[in-house]
Amino acid sequence: MGTGSSGSAAKPRRPTPPRVELLRVGHRPGRDPRLTTHLALVARAFGARRMHLHPPDPAVAESLNGVRERWGGTFEVLPAPTWKTVVRAAPGAVVHLTMYGEPLARLLPRLARERDLLLVVGGAKVPAALYGAATFNVAVGSQPHSEVAAVAVVLERLLGLPGSRPMAGARQRIVPQARGKRVVARGEGPA
Amino acid sequence: MGTGSSGSAAKPRRPTPPRVELLRVGHRPGRDPRLTTHLALVARAFGARRMHLHPPDPAVAESLNGVRERWGGTFEVLPAPTWKTVVRAAPGAVVHLTMYGEPLARLLPRLARERDLLLVVGGAKVPAALYGAATFNVAVGSQPHSEVAAVAVVLERLLGLPGSRPMAGARQRIVPQARGKRVVARGEGPA
Repeated sequence: MGTGSSGSAAKPRRPTPPRVELLRVGHRPGRDPRLTTHLALVARAFGARRMHLHPPDPAVAESLNGVRERWGGTFEVLPAPTWKTVVRAAPGAVVHLTMYGEPLARLLPRLARERDLLLVVGGAKVPAALYGAATFNVAVGSQPHSEVAAVAVVLERLLGLPGSRPMAGARQRIVPQARGKRVVARGEGPA
Repeated sequence: MGTGSSGSAAKPRRPTPPRVELLRVGHRPGRDPRLTTHLALVARAFGARRMHLHPPDPAVAESLNGVRERWGGTFEVLPAPTWKTVVRAAPGAVVHLTMYGEPLARLLPRLARERDLLLVVGGAKVPAALYGAATFNVAVGSQPHSEVAAVAVVLERLLGLPGSRPMAGARQRIVPQARGKRVVARGEGPA
């Protein structure tokens, strides 16, 4: 009880987690808005800063703006007319998530030491140049599954599980319940 | 070095991981086959046994049959004409994944002790009765995101990251690469 230095000093220091952005390549506007919207929502909920979307799709960006207005935070979807520009501008490692890459378990310690990470996921067609442009090609299991799952698992492993606290500026927030739903407006309900 | 009891005996015993099945409720055939297919692929890749699909959709089931033929394993998509029947027949805990539920971090130790788990995810419309029928209502973060991500993270936390080894009976498998793709047929390539 307030006696000072003993407890916390013994804990191993966790390094500052990396700042993470996401680049979605090969989006097909009109064909898979829902899948790309899920990808953006996952990036936001699991702690990425923003998503670059190639080719640009205002419908996805607007949908995420609406989520930000209600649920807070600063996440945004930026148009990426060319994916190479985003990759070249990345301040840190570029991590292409692909079932053909090296196992995540092996590369996680290296990724966790980075200050900035750009995660890149493709759609149905992935440009071959992406494998060469990436710093790492990383597989979340060598089986076909989903870019939505790959982004969630990598972010969860790097930044931890998303908590239940609202993001800054949220107009409404969820109060976790064993049964049913409880959503309260800002300033209302339990702290 | 080989002196016996010190090292391994001190390790905590990990319990046998639970057997996990998935129930997808509120699928809209024709409208979101891709999202539900992603969900099934994630369930398979991350170690669930099968997916029950309500309402049934032969297109998703056939797509997963094709994946099983090429990539092995025994995962299958079963038609669920009524979701309540699947919930009632569940041999263990029923875990409804919803942003309104209790935090995953709090419930994980209890879920990990179960022998059998049925994960349930809804689509756009979730029947209100599901909250009451579930043993646990669990939130992977109290923010809107994606049922695909929720299933991936829960399975990863319960069963670990999927490895890079092929599933039994695979006709082809991926050899993880730092750059590019390498897929070999059964019996070919490195062990």
